[in-house]
Amino acid sequence: MIKKRGKQTVKLESKPKIITTTSIVGPKEAKGPLKDYFDIKLKDELNGEDSYEKTESYMIYTAIMESIKKANLQQEDIDYLVTGDLLNQLTASSFAVRAIDIPYLGIYGACSTMTESLSLASMLIDGGFANYAIAATSSHFVSAERQFRFPLEYGAQRAVTSQWTVTGAGSMLLGKEGNYPYVTHVTIGKVKDYGITDSNNMGAAMAPAAVDTIKQHFQDTGRTPNYYDLIATGDLGKVGMDITNELLKEYGYDVKKNYTDCGYEIFYRDEEGVNAGGSGCGCSAVVDCGYIYKNMLSGKLKKVLLVSTGALLSTTSSLQGESIPGIAHAVAVEY
Amino acid sequence: MIKKRGKQTVKLESKPKIITTTSIVGPKEAKGPLKDYFDIKLKDELNGEDSYEKTESYMIYTAIMESIKKANLQQEDIDYLVTGDLLNQLTASSFAVRAIDIPYLGIYGACSTMTESLSLASMLIDGGFANYAIAATSSHFVSAERQFRFPLEYGAQRAVTSQWTVTGAGSMLLGKEGNYPYVTHVTIGKVKDYGITDSNNMGAAMAPAAVDTIKQHFQDTGRTPNYYDLIATGDLGKVGMDITNELLKEYGYDVKKNYTDCGYEIFYRDEEGVNAGGSGCGCSAVVDCGYIYKNMLSGKLKKVLLVSTGALLSTTSSLQGESIPGIAHAVAVEY
Repeated sequence: MIKKRGKQTVKLESKPKIITTTSIVGPKEAKGPLKDYFDIKLKDELNGEDSYEKTESYMIYTAIMESIKKANLQQEDIDYLVTGDLLNQLTASSFAVRAIDIPYLGIYGACSTMTESLSLASMLIDGGFANYAIAATSSHFVSAERQFRFPLEYGAQRAVTSQWTVTGAGSMLLGKEGNYPYVTHVTIGKVKDYGITDSNNMGAAMAPAAVDTIKQHFQDTGRTPNYYDLIATGDLGKVGMDITNELLKEYGYDVKKNYTDCGYEIFYRDEEGVNAGGSGCGCSAVVDCGYIYKNMLSGKLKKVLLVSTGALLSTTSSLQGESIPGIAHAVAVEY
Repeated sequence: MIKKRGKQTVKLESKPKIITTTSIVGPKEAKGPLKDYFDIKLKDELNGEDSYEKTESYMIYTAIMESIKKANLQQEDIDYLVTGDLLNQLTASSFAVRAIDIPYLGIYGACSTMTESLSLASMLIDGGFANYAIAATSSHFVSAERQFRFPLEYGAQRAVTSQWTVTGAGSMLLGKEGNYPYVTHVTIGKVKDYGITDSNNMGAAMAPAAVDTIKQHFQDTGRTPNYYDLIATGDLGKVGMDITNELLKEYGYDVKKNYTDCGYEIFYRDEEGVNAGGSGCGCSAVVDCGYIYKNMLSGKLKKVLLVSTGALLSTTSSLQGESIPGIAHAVAVEY
């Protein structure tokens, strides 16, 4: 009795429920077009911590704890925490989790982490291993800039294709029962590398992975783009979104009407420095947990396909002249 | 019908089978006491690649591909690859996997990765999501030293408590059917941090996590140390092993007779530079895939508990004065 449909998709007959979500964002995100959908807003990028890394850790900790509280549960009720982030060795997650008494599965999918963690948490529940599981991730503009590019103090100029890493964390608490938005299908992606070497053009690097996963999801399920009210990639930004639209058309799927990208939506388009849009694990995390989840609860969105997208580079791989592998995982949610 | 036993353990009724394993090691490991158990041996640390990072990527790629070949399967037969490594942003894994056409779940558990990936691969099969899944991980002495401590060229002196990162990769191919060693229980660990800040004493940092997971596994299953022919932690080395023995005794479990540590076993004790023993994701990977798996096949070991152990630090967290959180996941294998 295998749950597989087609080549890469599994159907979750038990429909794991997303019982609560929490989104927490920095001040820039809190002033953006989606500001009304976020739960917690930091007053500044540091929020009273000693370092930006600690602020990021605080955000993911708070997102997780709030989700548990809102669900009227205790830490001991949760069977697994599935989290990860962009920092080397996932320190935002692991330092947050050391203060939480829940078994921990650390994952890394770069900015695809929200749907990777949601996929695994859903499968752990559908497979009978958990009553409750939490999927969460975070990113922070300053900790990401100084790790991947330049410390902000250098005042480096930003490329037109560059994206602005979202300061934010999102957490989804999943369970077996209740009347909540539920996960129906999971499509785990393959690594795709089309030879992009420009780490200021991540949208182009990740788009082929998004296209491959979305196309495969349609083929596996027999669905077409119209099935969904919204298909939301993670952080392709303007550049990657256009590529995704074009490439999916070549496969015979016209998604333009109901497709958007979390990185394209989270900031005002003309805001200084944003350029191609938002990025980072936190980008799809807060848009999925905030805007999309709340619009599902209110009935505005009934069927969505969440497709967080990750660029699997490191500073070492870039310095060694390597191209940027991309990955994307798709999760179908209905209500 | 939840598969949970006690607080943290799940019982896998379908007993996912470890159909093949592959171990690949560097020249130092290939001369060590376990040399006869490894499948592939590199002639030097670079093995003809441009960089040590590429050599590490080559090792994990080769371990995965060999496991598929030995099982007489094709890439398209494998439903999931669950892999990770120590390099920033998991580039050893993701650059290996981009040449492999299998859906990819990147995970990070530092040196606990072998049992984290084995846990997830087993649960994906037991949960009905996969016919075949691969769990794999790697580490490389030179890439790890230059990322976490100093480039070798600096000639830095090694502490007596320091451990030698294993150059090696291990891969396990799991399936639903056949007469092979099989996974019966999985105990996912919690993050434990007892305040150790010395990144040259990882054994002490990880031991409390190993103790917590082993103790919990016994409590959840009602088993005692005697149930197992061998309990093997990942890379605690001499220092962490002694702590583990002592702390488990305080909980009423005397494991001394049938407990060892992969890091303690992989090198000769008097070899220069080894000090407290081996470490790295590759350490428990090659010992589990080589020594332990082969001794199960030959009937010398019937019941083992694999407990890879991870230290969740980064260079940034160490420089910021943070202590080192540890984690350990336990997988019970029988034949």
